[in-house]
Amino acid sequence: MQQVLFYQEAFVSYLNTFTIKRQPESLYNPINYILKLGGKRLRPVLTLMTAEIFECDYKKALDAALSIEVFHNFSLVHDDIMDDAPLRRGEETVHEKWDLNTGILSGDAMLIMAYQLFENYDASIFQALAKLFSKTALEVCEGQQFDVDFETRDDVSIPEYLKMIECKTAVLVGAAMKMGAIVAEASEEDQDVIYEFGKNLGIAFQLQDDYLDVFGDPNTFGKQVGGDIIENKKTYLYLKAVEFSEANKKTELQHLYSLNTTDHSEKINTAKQIFITSGSADATQKAIENYTKKAFLVLEKLDISEKNKLELITFGEQLMGRNV
Amino acid sequence: MQQVLFYQEAFVSYLNTFTIKRQPESLYNPINYILKLGGKRLRPVLTLMTAEIFECDYKKALDAALSIEVFHNFSLVHDDIMDDAPLRRGEETVHEKWDLNTGILSGDAMLIMAYQLFENYDASIFQALAKLFSKTALEVCEGQQFDVDFETRDDVSIPEYLKMIECKTAVLVGAAMKMGAIVAEASEEDQDVIYEFGKNLGIAFQLQDDYLDVFGDPNTFGKQVGGDIIENKKTYLYLKAVEFSEANKKTELQHLYSLNTTDHSEKINTAKQIFITSGSADATQKAIENYTKKAFLVLEKLDISEKNKLELITFGEQLMGRNV
Repeated sequence: MQQVLFYQEAFVSYLNTFTIKRQPESLYNPINYILKLGGKRLRPVLTLMTAEIFECDYKKALDAALSIEVFHNFSLVHDDIMDDAPLRRGEETVHEKWDLNTGILSGDAMLIMAYQLFENYDASIFQALAKLFSKTALEVCEGQQFDVDFETRDDVSIPEYLKMIECKTAVLVGAAMKMGAIVAEASEEDQDVIYEFGKNLGIAFQLQDDYLDVFGDPNTFGKQVGGDIIENKKTYLYLKAVEFSEANKKTELQHLYSLNTTDHSEKINTAKQIFITSGSADATQKAIENYTKKAFLVLEKLDISEKNKLELITFGEQLMGRNV
Repeated sequence: MQQVLFYQEAFVSYLNTFTIKRQPESLYNPINYILKLGGKRLRPVLTLMTAEIFECDYKKALDAALSIEVFHNFSLVHDDIMDDAPLRRGEETVHEKWDLNTGILSGDAMLIMAYQLFENYDASIFQALAKLFSKTALEVCEGQQFDVDFETRDDVSIPEYLKMIECKTAVLVGAAMKMGAIVAEASEEDQDVIYEFGKNLGIAFQLQDDYLDVFGDPNTFGKQVGGDIIENKKTYLYLKAVEFSEANKKTELQHLYSLNTTDHSEKINTAKQIFITSGSADATQKAIENYTKKAFLVLEKLDISEKNKLELITFGEQLMGRNV
């Protein structure tokens, strides 16, 4: 296994060869635009890395990795419409730069192209990749729909929230890794183990994202710290605080999350304090730790060299330390 | 081969077993709704019929047929958003009955489910179906984008218009038939021939739709006669009339197609007269005839019984006589 940076560069080089030159340009220019906007390319890197963990040249996995990235960007384009988001990675979103129809249709085309990227694989690998892809893509849609539904609900439970982030984020991490294993023709047992590893790490990563959104360092977090509080987003931190709080604190928090403030700093500070004093901040850190441990624990079942196992753990630790 | 009505009933029975009971209901209820709205089910019937033309039990083709129908309904849901259409088959469209986000997300889920419907087939048939599906689905997106682009263009040529309806409508008819041939494990040559038959018949069908929109019998046409004229839709009839007309008539027609009238009957009558006197109506009928003939002609290359060929021709004649 190489360093993450190596796979990132290899992937971006490959992505740069993938400029669509078909007609009509009005359909394909937005696709070329969003794919070149950048990002950490974490999911495709996982696909390449996993292929090599199972002793397969990463180059064989480039198309599967690209499929994962094209799908991820499809979901961003459609989600940005649903969230009415003007910016993505500091640049205009597709429906802002063009229009709603372009956002819908270019997104649709990307979803189809993600399947086409499996076509260079043999029939049995093609079928395994496409089946996993469909299952995962449908779960991502379900996760997005749960997320939308939760916005207007006051009774979301912790298991429901975990199910939502599992669908919306974690299954795609698991699938990205499993695709590397499928291309490497790893055993089905190993494919399932690496999927569980990725899925649990994905849940840990998303919970950490919730945590850093409130307690992160504004200089390194990348997004606006406190953004979830401003938007009244009922994250794990919020749900745990509601669960742990006495009636009056609970009412205060629920009232706080019904406000649309213009000066946000007081709201952010109040919520932050409740997250700390209620024990929700600690509980969230504990949950992150548990999902990370769970990910590392399943690795024991994996039929690969100890050296490769260690590399996966090192990668997981880097990711959770956010040096990746 | 059975009668069309037999395949329609067999398909609808099968479709009725396909009620999605997964969570969240807010994602799947709109899918169950649109799939049960009705319609002639022409595309899936073509898949079943083609399987039997190649001596394969139609039951083997039911999943492929359902995939085609699910995809067709996906495209209706997203197109209705883009066209801001309030009604579909006399009932509320998905984005009207629910909302924009539901329309986008339920549509996405249907596109994915269309691929999943191939999963019961063996790997090689799965791959052939999925490849054809992706190619076709992408062309349908391109056709829709051409159609959107044409709305704001004054210089659309006849070949461009034909390319648009080929992508938006005809390739799906070709693909529906080819899928039946793939499931029946017909030779690749026969698969290609039946695709060409379906595609040419699809173009003829769409041109006839343009024609009937103006000259059809209001009692049998099903849509509002003159609808394309009211909406300034630059159909084959319009483009041919522009091509055939002297400068002053051409200007009159172009001016007419810049109006948004409230009393439509005068506008419809004026356009109708220009279509007749310019020779555009005749030219359109001639084009319909040519594409139909082209479809029948390719059948000669097909390696099936004369009886089955005759049945295909009878079906094509019924379709173009709109008794189907």
